[in-house]
Parts: sequence; C-alpha cells; structure tokens
Amino acid sequence: MKEQVHDAARRARIAASSLAVATRAQKDAALHAIADALLHGTSAIVAANDLDVAEARETGTGANVIDRLRLDPGRVASFAEGVRDIAALPDPVGEVVRGSTLPNGLRMQQIRVPMGVIGMIYEGRPNVTADAAAICLKAGSSVLLRGSSSAARSNAAIIECMRAALVTAGLPADAIQQIPAGDRSSATHLMQARGLVDLVIPRGGAGLIRAVVEESTVPVIETGVGNCHVYVDAEADLEMALDIVVNSKTQRTSVCNAAESLLVHKAVADVFLPRVIAVLQAADVTIHGDEAFCAVDADIVPVTDDDDATEYLSLDISARVVDSIDEAVAHIRRFSSGHTEAIVTTSLAASSQFTTGVDSAAVMVNASTRFTDGAEFGFGAEIGISTQKLHARGPMGLTEMTTTTYVVVGDGHVR
Amino acid sequence: MKEQVHDAARRARIAASSLAVATRAQKDAALHAIADALLHGTSAIVAANDLDVAEARETGTGANVIDRLRLDPGRVASFAEGVRDIAALPDPVGEVVRGSTLPNGLRMQQIRVPMGVIGMIYEGRPNVTADAAAICLKAGSSVLLRGSSSAARSNAAIIECMRAALVTAGLPADAIQQIPAGDRSSATHLMQARGLVDLVIPRGGAGLIRAVVEESTVPVIETGVGNCHVYVDAEADLEMALDIVVNSKTQRTSVCNAAESLLVHKAVADVFLPRVIAVLQAADVTIHGDEAFCAVDADIVPVTDDDDATEYLSLDISARVVDSIDEAVAHIRRFSSGHTEAIVTTSLAASSQFTTGVDSAAVMVNASTRFTDGAEFGFGAEIGISTQKLHARGPMGLTEMTTTTYVVVGDGHVR
Repeated sequence: MKEQVHDAARRARIAASSLAVATRAQKDAALHAIADALLHGTSAIVAANDLDVAEARETGTGANVIDRLRLDPGRVASFAEGVRDIAALPDPVGEVVRGSTLPNGLRMQQIRVPMGVIGMIYEGRPNVTADAAAICLKAGSSVLLRGSSSAARSNAAIIECMRAALVTAGLPADAIQQIPAGDRSSATHLMQARGLVDLVIPRGGAGLIRAVVEESTVPVIETGVGNCHVYVDAEADLEMALDIVVNSKTQRTSVCNAAESLLVHKAVADVFLPRVIAVLQAADVTIHGDEAFCAVDADIVPVTDDDDATEYLSLDISARVVDSIDEAVAHIRRFSSGHTEAIVTTSLAASSQFTTGVDSAAVMVNASTRFTDGAEFGFGAEIGISTQKLHARGPMGLTEMTTTTYVVVGDGHVR
Repeated sequence: MKEQVHDAARRARIAASSLAVATRAQKDAALHAIADALLHGTSAIVAANDLDVAEARETGTGANVIDRLRLDPGRVASFAEGVRDIAALPDPVGEVVRGSTLPNGLRMQQIRVPMGVIGMIYEGRPNVTADAAAICLKAGSSVLLRGSSSAARSNAAIIECMRAALVTAGLPADAIQQIPAGDRSSATHLMQARGLVDLVIPRGGAGLIRAVVEESTVPVIETGVGNCHVYVDAEADLEMALDIVVNSKTQRTSVCNAAESLLVHKAVADVFLPRVIAVLQAADVTIHGDEAFCAVDADIVPVTDDDDATEYLSLDISARVVDSIDEAVAHIRRFSSGHTEAIVTTSLAASSQFTTGVDSAAVMVNASTRFTDGAEFGFGAEIGISTQKLHARGPMGLTEMTTTTYVVVGDGHVR
C-alpha cells in the first residue's frame, strides 16, 4: 500500500508541475469541463452512490450519516454548480504579495505560487470530493483524495468524471487521484509521504483530526472544531444580545461556528437571565447552567467542567454568569477551541479588551458567531476553517491553498 | 521532565497574554533593557561560557565547534547591539492585512496578532539565544529556549540577564524561559506539548531538523538545508556567470544560501567550462564534475548521484552540463532542497521558464544565491530561512512570527 500511495504522490507531483504553468484560462476551462462531466455522469454517480448507501444500511449505519452520504441528481447538480463558481473566482497564482527594489538595486518580488501536492483526508459527504478537487485545481495544485470507505464507490465515480474532464481540457488526469480507502494504512502512508506531499488537510470529526495531527509528518492544517462563546457584556444592548445568542446557537446547530457556550456579565444577569432562558427554551435549547442560571429556572441542567469544553453540535448550550470581562476572557482562553467568540457590548473599551484578549481565529463584535464562513467573508470557496495559527487561521479560501516564492532579479549582483 | 516542560509552557502562555496587549513602547523598552543587561552581565556570561568551552575541550570537541561556542566581550556586545536593532524595527502586531465592509454591512478586518508560545530547539552558537528571544518578544510571543547541552551554562547566563531585564521593564519574566538541555527528552516534550506550544522552530543540522519534523505534534517550521543551484543558460553573459558562480560558492561556504551545484547549458560549455574550472580552482574549490567537466581537466573528481543531493557547506561543488533548460529545471526539481536557485541569462523567456519551473523558496535571476537572507531582503531580523511551503517560505522576519485573527464588527447582525 505504501508503494501505491507514494507512486500516486509522485505522479501527482509530475502533474503539479504542469498545473503550475497552466494559465487561468486553461484551469477554468478544465473546471467547466469537470462541471459538465459531473452532470453527464449523474446517473453513474447516483448508481455508485446507491451501492454505498445500500451497504451502509446493511451495516446498520445511522439515518443521519446515510442522509449525508446519499446523492441524488439535485445534489450532483449542486456540486457541479459549485465547481463553476470556483472557475469564476480570481486565480490566486501569480499575485504579487509584496515587492520592492532593494538598496543595492536588486528587484525583489514575493509571488503567490501553487502548493504542489495536497492530500485531503475526509469523512462522510461525497460532495467534499468535487469541492476539494476543484479548489486545489484552481489553486494550481494536484490533490490526493482519501475519503471514507463508506463513500468509496461514490467518490470513485466522481473522480472518474473529473479525471476524464481534465484530459479533455488538456491537463494531466493525475492532478486528481483517489487514494484507496479500504485499508486504514493508506491514510497513514499519505500523511507520512514527506517530500512527496506538501500539505495534508483533514476534514471530519475531532477523532480524525487528532489522528492526522499526531501521526502526520507532512505539514497539516487543522480544521474545524468550534467551541464558540457568546459573551454578553455589562454594557450590552440586551435586545441585540437575545437575537445574537439565539441565532448563534440555533440557526444551524451541526456546524463548527454555532455557539456552544454563553457567558453573561453579573451586572445584567438579573434582567437578562430570565429573558435569555425564555427565548432559548422557546427554541428547544437545553441550557446547562451555573447556580445563577439554575436559580432562575428549574429546567436548567447544572453545568459541569466537561460542558465548558464541549462542542455539542446540538440544541444544548452551557451558560455561566461572570464577575467581569476579565473573567470572561480568561474562561474563553481556557476552554475555547480557538474558532470564534462573540461579544455583545456598546462599550468601545470592552470591545477592544475582548478582541485583543481572546485568542481565536475570529472575534465577532455585536454579530452572530455564524458569520465565520468563507462565503460570508466573500472568499467564494472554502476548504475548511482553520483553528490553528500556522499558515491559515479562520476560513481558508483559494489564497490559503497557495504558498509564495521570492523572485529576485539583478544585473550580475554578487556579495 | 514532561511536567517541568508543560509547566514552563503554561507559565509562558500566561506571560504571552500580557505580551499580547503590551504596547510597542513597552516591548521596545524591554528590548533596550535586555541589551543593557547583556552588556552589564558580560563578565558573568563570558565566565559561564568559559566553563562550557572547557568542558567541550575535555570531551574532545572539534576546534570549529568550539569556535562557534566561544563568547568574548566583543561577541556579547554584538548580540546586545542586535537586540537594539530589533527594537528599532516596526511592530508587526496590529497590522491590518486586509479589511473590507461586507455586503451585509459587517466590517471585517484581518489583523496580525502574536503567535503565543514559540519553542526554539537549536544547536551550537549561544548568540541564537539572545537573537531568538528578542525576535519573539518583539513579535509579542513568549519563547521556550531549548539550546544544546554544550552551551547550557552560557545560555543560562544570557537568559538570566534577559529575564531580569523583562521584570525591570514591567513585563513577565516567564516570557523568556530556558528548557533544560541535559536530558534529550526535554526536546521531545517541548515538541509534543500540543495545545501549550503554538509553534516549534528547529535550528541546526539536517539531523536535528529531521528529528523535530518527525516527532513533533506541535506545528513546525523547517529551516535551513540549502542544496542551492546555479544554472548558466545558453544565453548567459559569461563574465557575469563567472562572478555569480564564484560568489555563490565561495563568499561564505558554511551557510545555507551558498551554492552547492552548477549546471551549464551545453551551448556554452565549450567556452565556459575551461574558464569556470580555472576560476573555481583558483579559489580552492574542488569540482565534482560529469564527463564533460572531467574531459577538460584531470583534477575534476567524477560526480555521483550522492553529490547531486549533497549540501557540502565546504569548498566543493557538483557540476554538470545539461542539454536544455528543461533538463536543468528537472534536475533542480529532483535534487534541490527547495532553498535558492539562480539562473544566469539574458533571455526573458529563459528567466520566466526558470522562475516558474523550479519549486524553491527563492529564485535569483542574474544574482548570487547568497542574497537569500533576511537582512539582504530588508527584513531587519531573521529567525531562519524556511524551506517548507506552509506559513513562511524563505527568510522569516518578524511578520512571519505572527498569526492573524479576523475581527468582525456588526450592529446586531444575525444570519
């Protein structure tokens, strides 16, 4: 298996050297060819998906998971459309990040160039397959796709369409390759193919991400876990706070930018607690609260330290009253996963203290945590949301899928 | 030892939250206090260094290594001056990398913020201790310094001065800490303190860097190995080529941006080979050449594949004639460590093909490889030269020691 993965990576590297010099027009034509091929291949993709779904049913997979796995012509059309959207975005390759003429006359430019070979290790939804491949292609990199075995047939059908389209567009098929998913070792070999693979991005649950981070020798960008907080300050507009708390918690619960924890300044607790409890309970939210919350309503579940650290991804929220903004910031620094925190306040000083004090990828002031998103930020496409500090932090668009090189031009300069 | 390292990291994290909100004036005052303390502490530092040097002598350490280890008042004054130079640089923290008002009215800014806690694992020269600590402090991060055991006393004396200076400047001493070097496991615990340490930077030989990359679970930036090439094109100015080859190879041989390999287009081989052989031999360079080189001069050592992949760091160079620029690019893509490559050419097409075709941190056109350097690039300070593609590629200055956060301000925005 190791040789098979390394061989795929070597072929991907050769393909990447063609992609690196491809023009935007060539890459966009290939993306449109891929979208066309996906539409034309819809029946084959759906048939392959039927087999995956049937097997998942036989092995007793939960209905939720099967729903995420299932494809129909509408879903295929939707991710084909997503590929066209990526074609419409500006090409990040070639952007001059900075440049100047040095005192000795050397002309220096830092230029955005493709990453090379990117490994994706992911679970669940087969739409990630088309999406990730299209983003990598637009950014000039080859991609090795290691999805889950439960979606292996669906992914194979999607990848077959995309590879055929690359060839019709005059680009190498090996720019998009499937890594076999039957054997767990294929993922390990992929994340340890240092020198052959430039970057690995895991997408999936916390367990998958932890395993990749611990085992990988290839650089990794961690995505996703979001234990997001909303802090209602002493000087908050409480009507606004109610809206933001409810929206952050309930607008969509299964996503990483949903709020999981509420902190309320003691100065507004008397007024705010009964109201926020009422609106959250009206939205079917289970509140895991501290003594102050429990004192207001008998249906509040007592909060534990585990709750403070939990990304529920459900209609649950942990809730505490804090004595000060310092205590709120300290609590968030301790328990947050570094994704998104929100403050509701009318105080400039509090806003400033909060935004510099917490240590997360995004900080919202008087806005819902749900806005941390590549599409909302105007990036067009998003490969995930990075919660680490290296290379990319927050939503990762096409820019974050590139690296840079320094090109320095002289007239025979020596030192 | 694990608890000791983790405890240091936790204290560094608390210190980092103070540094994150420190003003530029506070940080610069601390840097000047550090420079003063190093000067005042010169005799103590040199005395500690004498003990390190004596022990190194007893254990039969080579003269080269001892020379790098040795400190005298001049060297201490020189790195104290380096600390003042870092104080004079602009503060990277707070820079707005991008910002816009989103269509829904949210005001989004991507702002440069400190990394948090940085681990340095390094060998040899004790000046790295002062240098790395000053760069991390200016960039608003705490640093855990894990030097080599051979320099442990020197490093301890330097760090003691710096910590005392931090306190006099009103910043927490724990922003700069020494990790004990006697036990190899301290390095392992440092690079596996995921969640406590944000970034590890190894500085030293290829063996150290490989070990850190393979064992670390904390994100790593690889620095340094430079198997740099000079390619003399068919359309080169040959006088210029001679200067650039000799300068790249011989101006300083022990550094990562020195050239280790020469490629010459066959169209100019007849004229260029005798001349370049003569000037390199006049500079005491041993040429490891292919058949074309060996045919010109009997003193040429036949080149091997190992030579192609070797970073000599000495007065040796591998040398080959290539049939085309394509062959040169392919050779470089295969053997280069991704540091710096140079082309000598008068052809715009050749320059363009070379700069987009090779895959290295820096590409020089008609200039010596020796220019890939933070000081030459005007970055002021440099913590190393990254040869990887993630986060930082090429010389790493203060900017590269930071991360970013998105601050998004609304008026009660919900989705």
